[in-house]
Amino acid sequence: MDMISTLLPAIEAELKKQVARLDEPRTRPFHEMLTYHMGWTGEGAGPEAAGKRIRPLMVLLCTSSCGAEWRSALPAAAAVELVHNFSLVHDDIEDNGDKRRGRTTVWKKWGLAQGTNAGDGLFILSNLALTDLEAGYPAPIVLRTAKILHQTCLDLTRGQFLDISYEDRADLTVDDYWPMVSGKTAALIAACCHLGALLGGADESRQEAYRAFGHYLGLAFQVQDDILGIWGDEALTGKSAVSDLVDGKKSLPVLFGLEKNGAFAKRWRQGPIRAEEVRALATLLEAESARTSAQDAARQMTDLALENLRVAHPQGEAGESIKSLADKLLQRGA
Amino acid sequence: MDMISTLLPAIEAELKKQVARLDEPRTRPFHEMLTYHMGWTGEGAGPEAAGKRIRPLMVLLCTSSCGAEWRSALPAAAAVELVHNFSLVHDDIEDNGDKRRGRTTVWKKWGLAQGTNAGDGLFILSNLALTDLEAGYPAPIVLRTAKILHQTCLDLTRGQFLDISYEDRADLTVDDYWPMVSGKTAALIAACCHLGALLGGADESRQEAYRAFGHYLGLAFQVQDDILGIWGDEALTGKSAVSDLVDGKKSLPVLFGLEKNGAFAKRWRQGPIRAEEVRALATLLEAESARTSAQDAARQMTDLALENLRVAHPQGEAGESIKSLADKLLQRGA
Repeated sequence: MDMISTLLPAIEAELKKQVARLDEPRTRPFHEMLTYHMGWTGEGAGPEAAGKRIRPLMVLLCTSSCGAEWRSALPAAAAVELVHNFSLVHDDIEDNGDKRRGRTTVWKKWGLAQGTNAGDGLFILSNLALTDLEAGYPAPIVLRTAKILHQTCLDLTRGQFLDISYEDRADLTVDDYWPMVSGKTAALIAACCHLGALLGGADESRQEAYRAFGHYLGLAFQVQDDILGIWGDEALTGKSAVSDLVDGKKSLPVLFGLEKNGAFAKRWRQGPIRAEEVRALATLLEAESARTSAQDAARQMTDLALENLRVAHPQGEAGESIKSLADKLLQRGA
Repeated sequence: MDMISTLLPAIEAELKKQVARLDEPRTRPFHEMLTYHMGWTGEGAGPEAAGKRIRPLMVLLCTSSCGAEWRSALPAAAAVELVHNFSLVHDDIEDNGDKRRGRTTVWKKWGLAQGTNAGDGLFILSNLALTDLEAGYPAPIVLRTAKILHQTCLDLTRGQFLDISYEDRADLTVDDYWPMVSGKTAALIAACCHLGALLGGADESRQEAYRAFGHYLGLAFQVQDDILGIWGDEALTGKSAVSDLVDGKKSLPVLFGLEKNGAFAKRWRQGPIRAEEVRALATLLEAESARTSAQDAARQMTDLALENLRVAHPQGEAGESIKSLADKLLQRGA
C-alpha cells in the first residue's frame, strides 16, 4: 500500500490548510477546537485521534484509478473528511457522547454552545474547501461536485433523523434499517467514490459504477461493524466498555432478532440490557440466526460492491490500493 | 412598497419548494420540524412566526435595482433566508432559548438531538438552493455566489464563537463589539446585497458598494436593536419579558458603560441584574452617556450605509424600496 503512504501526508496538509481559515488572533480558541477534534493538537493528539482518513483516501484513489492526477482533487478529499468530522461533532452532541476515539468530545470539553458552533464551522470549511477545486477544474465540474456533496449531506441528516427517531420505537423491522444506514454511512462513502471518478474524468456510467461501489462498500462495512458490535471480542469481553446491546443500538442483528419475535425480542422490549446479560443475549440472538442473517447481508453487499468495482474498472497502482482498502474494511473478523 | 408585496409571496413559494426536498414519507416529521420553524405549520403558524424575510427581500431588490429580472435570483433569496434560519435554530440551542417569535423553539419541541439535526438540514438546504441558480446563470457566477455565501457563513460562526466566549468575560471593551456583530448580524445582510448586485449584473466596484451598504446597514440595525434592548418601551416596562440587562447581553451600550468604569460597571461586575433593577440601571447607564455614544455609533453606521447606497446607485422602483426598507429598519425609535 505504498500509494496510500504518499497520499496520507498530502491529505493531512490539505486539511490543515483548509482549517487554517480560522487561524486568526481573535478566533484562535475556535481554531483550536477544530484542530483538537481533527486529532492534531491537545491531549491525546496523534494518528489514533485523527482516524484513518478512509474517505479522502477513497476520493484520491478513485481519481488516480481513472488515470488522472490526484493532486488537483485534494480540496475534494479535504471536503469529504471535513463533512465526516462535522457529522461526528454533531453526532456526539446528539448521542450525548463524551468520548470519541478515546478522547473527550468537543462539546464535553468546550460546552454545548461552542461544540454546536464548532460542528457548524467544520461543515462550512468543507463547503469552502470544495470551492478551491476551481484552481484545477472548470466551473461546471466544480458545481457538479458541490451538488453531489450537498445532496449527500442532506442524506446524512435524513439518516440521522431516522436514527434518532428510532430510539423510542419497538416496532422496527429490517426494512427500517437500510434507509437509515444508507444515509448515515453509505451516502458519504458513495460520494467519495463518485467525486473521485468525476474529478478523474470518468464518464457518467463509470461514475455511477464507482458511486455504487462506494454505496455497497459503505453498507457492507456498516453491517460488519454491527456484527462486531455484538459478537466482536471487545463487545463480548466488555474490555473496552461497550456492546451495542447495552447501548440499545438498532443494529441489523437486533432488527433481525426483533423481526423474529422470539425470546430475544421479548427480553429487548422489557427495557435496557445490562452488561452482565451481554454474553447470554448474544448467544440467544445467534441461536435465533440473527448472526448468519447479518453475515449473509454483509456478503451480499460486499458482492455488489465488488461487482460494481469490476465495472468501474479502476487502473494502475491506485486500482490495486482501492481493492486492498476495500478488503481491509470488509475483513475485520466477524 | 408595492414591489415588496409582489416579492414576498414569490419568496415564500421558493422557500417552500426548497424545503420540500425533505417532504418524503420516511422523513415527513423531519420536514415538519422545518416547516414549523419557518412559520408555515404547527401552533402559532403565520406571518408573525415566519418573520419579515428582510434578507431575501434585500437580495431581490438589489438584483432588480441593477436593472435585472429578480425572478432568476429567487434561489439565492431562499438560500440566505435558510442560512438565517439555520443560525436561529442553532442559536436557540446555544443560548438555551425556549421561545422564538413567541413560539416554542425547535429543540425544545423535538429535543436537542433532532433540533441540532434540523438546523443542519436547513443549512444544507441553503447550499442546495444556491445550486438551483444554474438554471439562470453561468456556472462561474453560481460558484461566485457559493463562495460569497460560504465565506459569510464562516463569518457567522466566528461571530457566534466570540459571542459565546464573551459570556464569561468582564474585561471587554467597545473594540470587542464590532468583530462580533460584524459576524453575527452584518455579514449576512452584506452578503444579501452583494449577491443581489452580482446576480443583477453589477460590476465589481458597484457590487462592493452594495456589499458595504449591507454591512453598515446591518451594523446600524444591530446598534439600534441594542439601544431598544435597554431603553425601548418593552425593555423598560418589562411587559414582554426582557431587558438585555437582565440577559447579561454584551450589547454596545453595556460595553460603553464597562469602558467608562463607573457605577454601572461596578454593579455589572457584581453579578446578574434583576428585573426590578432594570429602570434604575438604564437611567444610570444613560447618565454615563452610554446611550448617546451608542446613538452616535448608530448614526455613523447609518451615514456610511446611505453613502454606500448612493454610490451603488440603485434604480427604479426597487431602488426606492431599498431606501424605504432601510429607513424602516433604522427608524425603529431609540
